[in-house]
Amino acid sequence: MRDFAAQPVIVDCDPGHDDALALMLAAGDPRLRLLGVTTVAGNQTLDKTTRNALRILALAGVSGVPVAAGCDRPLVGDLTVAEDIHGTSGLDGPELDVPVAEAERVHAVELMRRLITGAAEPVTLIATGPLTNVALLLRTHPEVMSYVRRVVLMGGSTERGNTTPYGEFNIVTDPEAADIVLRSGLPATMIGLNVTHRALATAEIIAEFRALGTRLGTVCAELMTFFASTYHRVFGFAHPPVHDPIAVAAVIDPSIVHTVAAPVAVELTGAHTRGATVVDLHRRTANSPNADVAVDLDVDAFWRLLVSTVATLGPRTPSGTHG
Amino acid sequence: MRDFAAQPVIVDCDPGHDDALALMLAAGDPRLRLLGVTTVAGNQTLDKTTRNALRILALAGVSGVPVAAGCDRPLVGDLTVAEDIHGTSGLDGPELDVPVAEAERVHAVELMRRLITGAAEPVTLIATGPLTNVALLLRTHPEVMSYVRRVVLMGGSTERGNTTPYGEFNIVTDPEAADIVLRSGLPATMIGLNVTHRALATAEIIAEFRALGTRLGTVCAELMTFFASTYHRVFGFAHPPVHDPIAVAAVIDPSIVHTVAAPVAVELTGAHTRGATVVDLHRRTANSPNADVAVDLDVDAFWRLLVSTVATLGPRTPSGTHG
Amino acid sequence: MRDFAAQPVIVDCDPGHDDALALMLAAGDPRLRLLGVTTVAGNQTLDKTTRNALRILALAGVSGVPVAAGCDRPLVGDLTVAEDIHGTSGLDGPELDVPVAEAERVHAVELMRRLITGAAEPVTLIATGPLTNVALLLRTHPEVMSYVRRVVLMGGSTERGNTTPYGEFNIVTDPEAADIVLRSGLPATMIGLNVTHRALATAEIIAEFRALGTRLGTVCAELMTFFASTYHRVFGFAHPPVHDPIAVAAVIDPSIVHTVAAPVAVELTGAHTRGATVVDLHRRTANSPNADVAVDLDVDAFWRLLVSTVATLGPRTPSGTHG
Amino acid sequence: MRDFAAQPVIVDCDPGHDDALALMLAAGDPRLRLLGVTTVAGNQTLDKTTRNALRILALAGVSGVPVAAGCDRPLVGDLTVAEDIHGTSGLDGPELDVPVAEAERVHAVELMRRLITGAAEPVTLIATGPLTNVALLLRTHPEVMSYVRRVVLMGGSTERGNTTPYGEFNIVTDPEAADIVLRSGLPATMIGLNVTHRALATAEIIAEFRALGTRLGTVCAELMTFFASTYHRVFGFAHPPVHDPIAVAAVIDPSIVHTVAAPVAVELTGAHTRGATVVDLHRRTANSPNADVAVDLDVDAFWRLLVSTVATLGPRTPSGTHG
Repeated sequence: MRDFAAQPVIVDCDPGHDDALALMLAAGDPRLRLLGVTTVAGNQTLDKTTRNALRILALAGVSGVPVAAGCDRPLVGDLTVAEDIHGTSGLDGPELDVPVAEAERVHAVELMRRLITGAAEPVTLIATGPLTNVALLLRTHPEVMSYVRRVVLMGGSTERGNTTPYGEFNIVTDPEAADIVLRSGLPATMIGLNVTHRALATAEIIAEFRALGTRLGTVCAELMTFFASTYHRVFGFAHPPVHDPIAVAAVIDPSIVHTVAAPVAVELTGAHTRGATVVDLHRRTANSPNADVAVDLDVDAFWRLLVSTVATLGPRTPSGTHG
Repeated sequence: MRDFAAQPVIVDCDPGHDDALALMLAAGDPRLRLLGVTTVAGNQTLDKTTRNALRILALAGVSGVPVAAGCDRPLVGDLTVAEDIHGTSGLDGPELDVPVAEAERVHAVELMRRLITGAAEPVTLIATGPLTNVALLLRTHPEVMSYVRRVVLMGGSTERGNTTPYGEFNIVTDPEAADIVLRSGLPATMIGLNVTHRALATAEIIAEFRALGTRLGTVCAELMTFFASTYHRVFGFAHPPVHDPIAVAAVIDPSIVHTVAAPVAVELTGAHTRGATVVDLHRRTANSPNADVAVDLDVDAFWRLLVSTVATLGPRTPSGTHG
Repeated sequence: MRDFAAQPVIVDCDPGHDDALALMLAAGDPRLRLLGVTTVAGNQTLDKTTRNALRILALAGVSGVPVAAGCDRPLVGDLTVAEDIHGTSGLDGPELDVPVAEAERVHAVELMRRLITGAAEPVTLIATGPLTNVALLLRTHPEVMSYVRRVVLMGGSTERGNTTPYGEFNIVTDPEAADIVLRSGLPATMIGLNVTHRALATAEIIAEFRALGTRLGTVCAELMTFFASTYHRVFGFAHPPVHDPIAVAAVIDPSIVHTVAAPVAVELTGAHTRGATVVDLHRRTANSPNADVAVDLDVDAFWRLLVSTVATLGPRTPSGTHG
Repeated sequence: MRDFAAQPVIVDCDPGHDDALALMLAAGDPRLRLLGVTTVAGNQTLDKTTRNALRILALAGVSGVPVAAGCDRPLVGDLTVAEDIHGTSGLDGPELDVPVAEAERVHAVELMRRLITGAAEPVTLIATGPLTNVALLLRTHPEVMSYVRRVVLMGGSTERGNTTPYGEFNIVTDPEAADIVLRSGLPATMIGLNVTHRALATAEIIAEFRALGTRLGTVCAELMTFFASTYHRVFGFAHPPVHDPIAVAAVIDPSIVHTVAAPVAVELTGAHTRGATVVDLHRRTANSPNADVAVDLDVDAFWRLLVSTVATLGPRTPSGTHG
């Protein structure tokens, strides 16, 4: 039974290998109450990311959490999916054949609105994909802002990017949406590549997941094994970084990331830098801080949290226990 | 009684003096069926433009047309209202004290979605303000696009602008929204300053409205008298242009404007030209036409249509006739 | 014999059909003293524009005026010549076989520096091509600015452009150079398409040149006949505009153009508007005027001046008279 | 006596504390032949950087090396000097009173042109300031390019910047100049903050300079002590990085820096990233490499080279030996 003192969260995502891990963590940790999951086009097209979210929840044995599909493209630019990183399905690697629930028949923005305004306490939005849905929510229903506790987003970087030299995929995909969210006045926490690139799924980590002995543990191991192959080919990484679950971890246990308040601007107009998150760590501009920016990560604590949470999840058997 | 063969339209507006005339024309001409009115921040703040829309409909004796408020700011940039042109109320000039109906309790985007998907035939969207609501509709509910006949918008210019040297107010206020609409694939007709600056409310025109002898005629005369004073002060115009009703007139009687198909891009990134509509009339680029762009106007036919329509409108008396 | 009270000018140009006419006017009118001619890449490559300048001076019977080649490309962008307008040679149309002088062995910038610092009174720079040479002069030798009376340039527009919807060829070719010149603090007069498009070489005008009965008159007629064909094909003009000599005419007789002081910015960063001259005629920005911008033209006076000056020019015969 | 097999170099600089060290290294190492020094506005105004170059050469006992002043501002933008880092004089800290030679009466661009075309073998340009002079040279005299061996520049970063989050001072000061140089086709080596931030003048290093027992050693120690104070105040550095001499060291001994060939673009249009050097290390774009980009530094070898070279320099005494 869920602890109703748990912190209410909504995860907006585009699974995506690391989004899958983020969903598991958000669904499994008792300190969070996962009110709903919304999906957005990003790592793959909207129909695929939606189906992937449903599959991960089913594999994790999570029921009763509504899932709604949102935007099928960015606000302004065109969609370029990350098929080179996440494969044709968006979750290439493991066998994911599983009966899934149906998505809600309302738009992600409307589901978010209802869940937020209906919650007993302010809701934390965890965004692990392009911020299109969140931005549309803020522009269409600015009245929800007083019911949102904060936005914790995986995206951007204080240093180099991945999609472009200074641009990270989620922000590059929809820079205007990121700009809307970061200038909205909502408390925001940015978990960028500068910290997520330290959470590397080494062979030891992958072995830990496999050693769980559950189907979900095997799925995680296979997801990371596939992710390792694409990160090696595209970026030359020895081990793949696992970005998205760090945003969830930062909500569960804020001590896992060290953040500093800083002005963050999203570059909307650069010929080579569109989508860069320009983080003024040394306060060279006159701008005021508008986000808490992660600058350090407790890598061990993060992996302990993630592995131990996945261990508790799995398809429900008829007797109501995990497989 | 309305003719149900009339063309269904929704007017999305930010009244505004010329929006007020556009609303009257859309409500009064029997060839249109005004399904609803949605409002957006632009000429004034959202609460003022919404109240102004309700007041104009009340003064015109129009009932049963739902009005819903939409976005209170542009997608990306900040809102700068046109108080220097439209005054503190957004409709300065006449006395507009009148009992008004209430706005719907749904968002403009949701009202548009319902009206469009519920209509018996494709709906024409007439947009006379910043395109924020229309853009949000297209991004949140792309499925409505097959039920939209076309978008006819007052905005932009093939020549000079008004808010900036090359930027017209509606597009400058929300360039990203205009970009979304003009790149959506929906048939679009652009009525820009290059034609609206020919529809000048001369002393003779104002006298015609006053000579109608109705309260609404007087309101129109006073609106244009105020508009004349601000256009004279700000732009040095001898007579004020009346932009927005031309978009409605173009739907009622396409022969009133002459259009050419042309590629239209919205400048999103210029330091001095953000919001300019870049119309490639001479086809110097390789882009395909994405809009029918008005290049000429039958000024006399326009004024005859507008004056004669206003003549038919007015507050309903207990006996059901206009006042 | 030259009148030494005549106003000293340097013409920086990229002939080019209309540049050719500008050179003739500058060389022939007794109120000007043509100190030198410098060439720049633009309408054609630098070697062609230099050769064309030398050919026009030879055909006009002008000797003793030094010609120096300058920049072979814009400051920042890449060079795109206007071969569709001016043909392969840059002066397609007439037979221009004539013995020519040699260009100076110094760079255009150095020739300008020497002529300006060596002149008895402040020199007027007439620029009818991209402003690359002039900008380099100002940046390399800022000390010459006190010896320059003003810059009169053909370029830009207060309305639409020709190379792009809002961009005129000379400025689009080197926007940074135009920005440098217009922000230099030098008095500047801008002769843009908004006036040059009124100076149309009609059949009557072309006939007037032909009727001069000189070789130069015939050359002029043939230049304009070729120009007419390309302007008709590319822009649909019935008669071609003759841009560049208006800049010279404005120096000879300021009453030929009506100018207003206005802030002019060059758009450097627009995705669709790079190179637009943004002229704030209605003073909507807080910027101060930095140029006198031509807004009207005495078309008849211009043609009378040009035709009558060409009539006085021609290859010198051994007896010292024109051919 | 100079070794005429030494590599001919020109140093273009804006001293500046670290430029001063770069000058000493270029003047003192026998493997280089310092043909000339040119100055540019940057760390301070042109008159100050020129005077500082002359003072450093005098203090180093270097005579016969011509110095010429160049551009007093960037090509396009406005000049903002780094007075917060380098002080009012541009070389605050030590007492620098010394009789100095006069600068040449030709412009830096002309001096570079003469030295390059007059050299017996291709010349290496070492640029440690904004690239304004070098860019002007390439645009005004493109014919010199075949006599230039390569350009080695201190500027930019593969990671974060210093003047803005992604912009380094030299490139931010004149982005268009950097763009011209990096797109010129000349072999270029970029020494960016990503390596220069490893060359920290620790207390031990400063003590080594002081222990040389020469006036120049003391000057170096005092320069770095002042630099330490500003870097600590502005950036929170415990020890100041010494950027510019690494560019000289990379010419003297290429093994001191490790470089990779990579595409480098200069961001010219970003609202927050103008002047960023966008280095595509992972080859995510289709662009070809246009620079060898330093990615690692042999810190110890660098300091050994610098300290040992400074030890050999000093004001010439009447007997012709160093002081």
